[in-house]
Amino acid sequence: MNTSNINPTMTQLGKVRSVIRETFEYGNKRAKEIGRENVFDFSLGNPSVPAPEIVDDTICGLIKTGDSVQLHSYTSAQGAEPTRAAIAEDINRRYNAGIDKNDIYMTCGAAASLTVSIHALACEGDEFITFAPFFPEYKVFVNAAGATLTVIPADTENFQIDFDTFVSAISPKTKAVIINTPNNPTGVVLSESTITRLCEILKAKSEEFGAPIYLISDEPYRELVYDNTTVVPYLTNCYDYTLVCYSYSKSLSLPGERIGYIVVCNKMPHHEDVYAAVCGAGRALGFVCAPAMMQKVIVSALGTTSDISVYKTNRDLLYNALTEYGYKCVHPDGAFYLFVKALEDDAAAFCEKAKEYDLLLVPSDSFGCKGYIRIAYCVTTDMIRRSLPAFKKLAETYGK
Amino acid sequence: MNTSNINPTMTQLGKVRSVIRETFEYGNKRAKEIGRENVFDFSLGNPSVPAPEIVDDTICGLIKTGDSVQLHSYTSAQGAEPTRAAIAEDINRRYNAGIDKNDIYMTCGAAASLTVSIHALACEGDEFITFAPFFPEYKVFVNAAGATLTVIPADTENFQIDFDTFVSAISPKTKAVIINTPNNPTGVVLSESTITRLCEILKAKSEEFGAPIYLISDEPYRELVYDNTTVVPYLTNCYDYTLVCYSYSKSLSLPGERIGYIVVCNKMPHHEDVYAAVCGAGRALGFVCAPAMMQKVIVSALGTTSDISVYKTNRDLLYNALTEYGYKCVHPDGAFYLFVKALEDDAAAFCEKAKEYDLLLVPSDSFGCKGYIRIAYCVTTDMIRRSLPAFKKLAETYGK
Repeated sequence: MNTSNINPTMTQLGKVRSVIRETFEYGNKRAKEIGRENVFDFSLGNPSVPAPEIVDDTICGLIKTGDSVQLHSYTSAQGAEPTRAAIAEDINRRYNAGIDKNDIYMTCGAAASLTVSIHALACEGDEFITFAPFFPEYKVFVNAAGATLTVIPADTENFQIDFDTFVSAISPKTKAVIINTPNNPTGVVLSESTITRLCEILKAKSEEFGAPIYLISDEPYRELVYDNTTVVPYLTNCYDYTLVCYSYSKSLSLPGERIGYIVVCNKMPHHEDVYAAVCGAGRALGFVCAPAMMQKVIVSALGTTSDISVYKTNRDLLYNALTEYGYKCVHPDGAFYLFVKALEDDAAAFCEKAKEYDLLLVPSDSFGCKGYIRIAYCVTTDMIRRSLPAFKKLAETYGK
Repeated sequence: MNTSNINPTMTQLGKVRSVIRETFEYGNKRAKEIGRENVFDFSLGNPSVPAPEIVDDTICGLIKTGDSVQLHSYTSAQGAEPTRAAIAEDINRRYNAGIDKNDIYMTCGAAASLTVSIHALACEGDEFITFAPFFPEYKVFVNAAGATLTVIPADTENFQIDFDTFVSAISPKTKAVIINTPNNPTGVVLSESTITRLCEILKAKSEEFGAPIYLISDEPYRELVYDNTTVVPYLTNCYDYTLVCYSYSKSLSLPGERIGYIVVCNKMPHHEDVYAAVCGAGRALGFVCAPAMMQKVIVSALGTTSDISVYKTNRDLLYNALTEYGYKCVHPDGAFYLFVKALEDDAAAFCEKAKEYDLLLVPSDSFGCKGYIRIAYCVTTDMIRRSLPAFKKLAETYGK
């Protein structure tokens, strides 16, 4: 048979690796040639600090004292009730948000939170809007639901939102807006005034069109903020048509365990329909339930995080050194990324040049914002220290 | 706003609970009224025997001796290489199937194995075929990929395949055929001659149309077979265009942990494209990777199962008693279900009558085959013993 006759979009998605993965694989190859310690791999957003001890202690405790059948059994599709109740209580304690356990749907991590939310909302031909620079999988997720993604170009001054362009992009086809704060790849936290203005626009436009524009807040980095950064407002307190997408991948260093949740703001009219659509989308995509044991484990870890002070140390070390060497970079208040202006127009070419010093950086093109590189500083502080001479030499080749 | 403007299909899927779930919830309510011990709930296919000890021992071992960061970190999207290698070796040891680690894609359980396979293959307007009685979520999964499901009516004689009807249903639009053996809800194992004939037809029709018809073998119950039931042939040995969908939910009693895999038969032409499409579909649906720790845990449990002798005891006890009381039921060789002819034409009415004796059974209508009830006997043997008088009284009300 000279045809496979399968879905060409899916084949394409499976074959074209993301540039992040490509860089990571190159790093592994290079490590075999010159030794792991000589490769400065800043490509992946994989947490480098362990999960808090309570996580592993709870797993062992549940196994020793619990009923194995019950421990590993299906939970209800929306998640175990005690878990949802505990998460709602934790959110309310921190943000006074009035969340109920029945507003929460447990997911297999941030990507699942997004695909389930998007499939719940999207009808064929709908438009979603996001802001560059943005996590490139948003486009994949939105397209898989039969919708299109409109990207608002970056506000390269402050990496907040270019509101004029945003307002002109909204149309009756706009189903939802996706924000990500603290942001991957910039590390920037959207300011309270940015969020206030965003919500005002969404309210006005929803009323103008007579149909809601939803806000999807993708916030796996919520707890990863440094210094005295003002806490981001909890979005359900700002805008009724909000879905919060959360994951414990970063805050508890559990990226491989696939555990997170969606909050459907209970102040939106038709809340019951939207929550049902979230359940329906989870069912249709084949999620069944979030991993059962992890649903129990995270309850014990609510209110704690991995030791994120390491990330702050890394950020300060790297930010201070790079700016001293002549690099330009927005000061990041959260997440574990630096978004640095490349020292030539072509970010991909700059990353190739950096490879000569065994610095593995990710060019910004796939994030929808050319001319920058992303540095994931969720690595050891020691590696950062050892990488600094390479960053210095790289700058010097550009006359800095 | 008097519209939610969301996806109506998803809302519908979230609101209309499956009859299985409805029955289960009724059981919980009834247990509060008359005591758990007086409710004979046969509704859910949730394993009642614990995971083998090696599973929980391995989890604790990994936590005590392993590196926490590495343990909980992302694996590659297709799954950790050592896990895929160990599974391939285990399959080859048992079935001499020539599977390579690069033919295996790790998933979040059986439902994910199915949705990812279906999305990899399906183009808009494609048809998938399955055989009644069938797991009702197949329709949900196929429709979510933009395709339609054609159901071949049951062969109520032997619950094998009505080949005449099947052959006449195949068309150039047929993208794939889904089989499930041992079967939920009948417990029947497809015979070797059935499978041989099925594969011959698929080969002939693929050649006739000049495009492959894929075979999706949904087999989470593969290891749950009793007596001297001939081992089902491994499907990749029978037909090149096969995708095997597996899950450890039943064999290792880990339904809540969401761990399984897809095998893409490496003998199909364009194997690389199809495997890429599987990876692409997993990516588009938001799976990222299968739960990381569980990927490591199952390696230690390969070749073992939970103590399935309990299920055999239960099957024999129930089958023998029910047939003695006058019920008619195909003798099941596998899984943990009995598919019993209702004692009146309307299976739903029969289940309502059974409720008067606090017997909670699932009517067969949603499985695409009217007039039967499904009994999930993955319960305690003690409950089965205590339920027998109720089954007897129920039969007597129908003059048996």
